[in-house]
Amino acid sequence: MGPRESFHMTPEEFRRHGRAVVDWIADYWERVERLPVLSMVQPGDIRAALPASPPIDGEPFEALLHDIDSVILSGLTHWQSPNFFAFFPANTSGPAILGELLSAGLGVQGMLWLTSPACTELETHVLDWLVEMLGLPGSFKSGSTGGGVIQDSASSAALCALLAARERATGFLSNEKGCDGRLVAYASTQTHSSVEKAVTIAGLGRANLRLVEVDAAFAMRPDALATRVVEDRRAGLLPCFVCATVGTTSSNAVDPLPPIGRIAREQGLWLHVDAAMAGTAAICPEFRHLQDGLEFADSYCFNPHKWMFTNFDCDCFWVADRTALVRTLSILPEYLKNRATESGAVIDYRDWQIPLGRRFRALKLWFVIRSYGVSGLQYHVRRHIELAQTFASWVEASDRFELAMRPPLNLVCFRHRRGDVFNRDLLDRVNQGGSFYMTHTTLEGRFTLRFCVGQTRTEERHVEAAWRQIQAVAADLERKASR
Amino acid sequence: MGPRESFHMTPEEFRRHGRAVVDWIADYWERVERLPVLSMVQPGDIRAALPASPPIDGEPFEALLHDIDSVILSGLTHWQSPNFFAFFPANTSGPAILGELLSAGLGVQGMLWLTSPACTELETHVLDWLVEMLGLPGSFKSGSTGGGVIQDSASSAALCALLAARERATGFLSNEKGCDGRLVAYASTQTHSSVEKAVTIAGLGRANLRLVEVDAAFAMRPDALATRVVEDRRAGLLPCFVCATVGTTSSNAVDPLPPIGRIAREQGLWLHVDAAMAGTAAICPEFRHLQDGLEFADSYCFNPHKWMFTNFDCDCFWVADRTALVRTLSILPEYLKNRATESGAVIDYRDWQIPLGRRFRALKLWFVIRSYGVSGLQYHVRRHIELAQTFASWVEASDRFELAMRPPLNLVCFRHRRGDVFNRDLLDRVNQGGSFYMTHTTLEGRFTLRFCVGQTRTEERHVEAAWRQIQAVAADLERKASR
Repeated sequence: MGPRESFHMTPEEFRRHGRAVVDWIADYWERVERLPVLSMVQPGDIRAALPASPPIDGEPFEALLHDIDSVILSGLTHWQSPNFFAFFPANTSGPAILGELLSAGLGVQGMLWLTSPACTELETHVLDWLVEMLGLPGSFKSGSTGGGVIQDSASSAALCALLAARERATGFLSNEKGCDGRLVAYASTQTHSSVEKAVTIAGLGRANLRLVEVDAAFAMRPDALATRVVEDRRAGLLPCFVCATVGTTSSNAVDPLPPIGRIAREQGLWLHVDAAMAGTAAICPEFRHLQDGLEFADSYCFNPHKWMFTNFDCDCFWVADRTALVRTLSILPEYLKNRATESGAVIDYRDWQIPLGRRFRALKLWFVIRSYGVSGLQYHVRRHIELAQTFASWVEASDRFELAMRPPLNLVCFRHRRGDVFNRDLLDRVNQGGSFYMTHTTLEGRFTLRFCVGQTRTEERHVEAAWRQIQAVAADLERKASR
Repeated sequence: MGPRESFHMTPEEFRRHGRAVVDWIADYWERVERLPVLSMVQPGDIRAALPASPPIDGEPFEALLHDIDSVILSGLTHWQSPNFFAFFPANTSGPAILGELLSAGLGVQGMLWLTSPACTELETHVLDWLVEMLGLPGSFKSGSTGGGVIQDSASSAALCALLAARERATGFLSNEKGCDGRLVAYASTQTHSSVEKAVTIAGLGRANLRLVEVDAAFAMRPDALATRVVEDRRAGLLPCFVCATVGTTSSNAVDPLPPIGRIAREQGLWLHVDAAMAGTAAICPEFRHLQDGLEFADSYCFNPHKWMFTNFDCDCFWVADRTALVRTLSILPEYLKNRATESGAVIDYRDWQIPLGRRFRALKLWFVIRSYGVSGLQYHVRRHIELAQTFASWVEASDRFELAMRPPLNLVCFRHRRGDVFNRDLLDRVNQGGSFYMTHTTLEGRFTLRFCVGQTRTEERHVEAAWRQIQAVAADLERKASR
C-alpha cells in the first residue's frame, strides 16, 4: 500500500459536492434566461483555455466546478433557455434530471433481464403506460405481440426498424447472406436524414432509397409511393421498408398514414412511423388525429427527450411484432448465457437495439410521468402549442411576414416577404443578438425561418419578446436596404 | 390559464429533492456491500408491484424516491457492489456521477460544433489527453490525421469502424450502391459478439465473417488470418476489415497486434483494435506492452465505463484517418447547415457516430481524469490487477482448482477440477448465496469460472471473502457428491 489508501471521492465528499452541483443547476435555471442563447465563441477558443496535458495529481472538486463557469459556460448554446426556439426542443425537467442522477448512481447494466430485472421490467412497464397515454395501437403493448424499448435516438430506432424490415423481406436471410442490392426503401423528400443514414449503414445503398414526392403541405403523396413501389417490383427489385413521418423536422408536416399503411400492407413493406417531436402531442386526445392510421405501423417512435421534459437520451420505440425485431438483433455468446434468458420468460433488451450495454433510462421517464401526471404533461403541451399558434397569428396579421404553411402544432415556418437573402440576414442578425435563437430550413426551394416552441420554461413573454425582436431587426434591415 | 400555472419542479424544489437524491446515493454506497449482489426476484415480480396505469395527477417527489427502496431495489443486480466480480466491471465514481448530473442539467446537444462548441471541443481535448495518458499512437490525435470521439459502447465503435472499412475498400461506393456480398471481415473465435452483430447490421452477412483460429492462449493466430485472407482473395472476395482484441471478453486474451497489423497493411484491411476493458491498464506504463503494434491500427476503442470509474456510457474511439470515418458517416440536411460547419474549421461529431443527437459525455470523463489525476487512476488500476493476481495465486496453490490460463490483468479464468457439471453447480450455489457475484465462459469447450476485479470499491477483504466462499461451497458440494 502506498501513502494513500484511496483516491475515490468518499460518500461524505459526494454529499457535499453533490449539493454544490445541484445548487449550481438550480442557479443555472434561474439565470439561463439572461445568457446569450447561441454561444459566441470562435473555433478553438474553448480548447485554448484548457491545459495541454492531463494533471498528474488529482484536483479538488471545487476547481472542476469553478471551470464550468470560467471555461465551459461561454461555449454552450443554451438549449435549456426559455428563449431557445431553434431546431427542436431538447427539454428537461427536475424529475428527469434526478432520475438520470439516480441511474448514474445505481450504475446498473440492463443488457439482460438478469443483469438488473427492474431495469428491464420498469422499461417495459412504462412503455406500456405510454401506449395508453398516447392512444397507440394495442399491438404495441408487451402483453400483445409487440412491445416497447428505449433507444438513444430516433436515428437508432429507424435503423433497427430498417434492419428488421430487411430481414423480414428476405425470409430472415440478409443477416446471414448480406445485402444483394435488390432491397429498396421509401421515404419522402421531407423525411429526416437519419433514414438515409440508416439505408447506407444497413447496406441497402443510397441508390435504393426512393424519396417520394410530397404535396403542397409537404406530406408524402401515397399515389407517388404506390407508383414507385410498382415500378421497382417490375424492375425486379425488392421493396421492403417505408418510413412515414408525423411531424417532419423541416416543417412538422404529417404524412397520411392510412393510405400509406394500406400500400405498405398490400406490398409487404415494413411501415415505420417517426414522430420524434410531434408524437408527444398525442398525450392530448385532441391531437391524436395526427396519428390516425398508426394501426398499420410495424414500428413507431417518438422522443420524450425532445418535447416531454425528459433529458436526452430517451427515444421510445415500439414494434407490433417483437419476434421479427428480436430475431434480427439477437446474439447470445456463451458469456451472456443464463437460465432466465433460456426460460424465454423474460425480455433481454440487448436484442432490441444496436449496442449491447444499456443504462437504466426508464427511471427518468417514470419520474417524469409520475411527477407531472398525465394531466400536467397535457397542460404544458397544450400551452406550447397555444403559444406557437399565437405566434403564427402574429405572423399572419403582419404585412411583412408570411407563413410558409399552417403550423399543425408547435413549429411555425415563416418568412419575411423580401426573399432568401433578406431572411438569411435577418436570421443571422437575430441569432447574433443573443436574446433568442431560431434556425432555418428550405421549403419549396425558399429559405424559411423555423420557430419551434417547446422548451420547458418558455412562457408567453419569451415568445412575445422574440416576435418584437424579429420585427425590430427586420425593420432595421428594411431601412438599410432602402437607403 | 387553468387554476395552476405550472407543473414544473421549481429551482427551490429541485435543490431540496436533489439533495435527497445525492444523500440516497451516498447512503447506497455505504450499504451496497451488504445487499445480495445478484437480484433474486422472479420474472414479473417488479411489474406486479407497479400500477397498471399511469397517474392522471402528479405525485410528490418523495413518493418516487420511496419507491426506489420499496419497489426497485430488490430488482437490481448491484454492479456497484465491491462484491461484484461478474461479466466486466461497469464502475462509477463520485466525479463521474456529478459530471453526468451536470450534463443532464445543462441539457445541451453536441451533434454539431455550433450546437454547443464546448461540448465538442472538450471531447476532442480530453480524447487527445487520453492518447498521451495511454501511450496511444500520435496519429490518433486531433492535431494529426486522426481524432477521438465518445461512442455509447464498443459495439457502436466496432460498427463505425466496419462501416468506414467497407467504404474504404469499395472506393467509397458502398454507401451509395449497397453491399454486394463480396466484402469479408475477420475476427477471432474469441472476438466479442458485437463484431458479428456489426457484420450483420452493415449488410456484409454473417457468412462473410471469418472467425480465425486461436492459439493455446486464446489469441488470434496471424498465420491462420493470412491464410484465410489469401483464400478469400483467390475466391474473388474482397477482404476489408479485421478486428483484433486486447483483452477478450471471455478470458482477457491479447491478440498479437504486430503480425496482425502487418497482414492488415499488406492486404489493405482496416484494422480495428478493441480493448474495451483492458485498455484502461495502459494508463500504467508497465502494461503498455499489451498494445504493442497499435501503430498499425486504423481504429481503436476502450471503455472508461468499464474500468476507469466513469459511468456508462463512455466508449472512447479513435481513428488514424478521420477523413475516411467522416466521409462514411456524414449527412448534411438543410436544417443543420451553418457557417461553422461550412468553414471546415470545426468538428461536427454527428459525422463520427450512428445517431445524430449526443449529450455532453466529455464532462464526466474530464471530471474523472482531473479528480483522480493520472497517478490516482494508476494507483487503483494497479491495485485491481494486484488483487486479481493474488486471487490467481490462491487458485494455483489450491489442489482443488486450476487456472484456465495465466491472467494477464484483472480477470481470472479458473475452474474446479471436477468438471463442467460441478463447476456449473458451484457457480449457481455461489451466486444464489448473494454474498458476491461472478459469471462463466467456455474455454476449449470447458465450463470456466470468470472472476473479474475492477469494481471501484473492491478491496482485498472482498476478494478474500469471495475465495473463502468459493472454497466452502466447493467443499460442501464435494461432500454431497461423495455421499
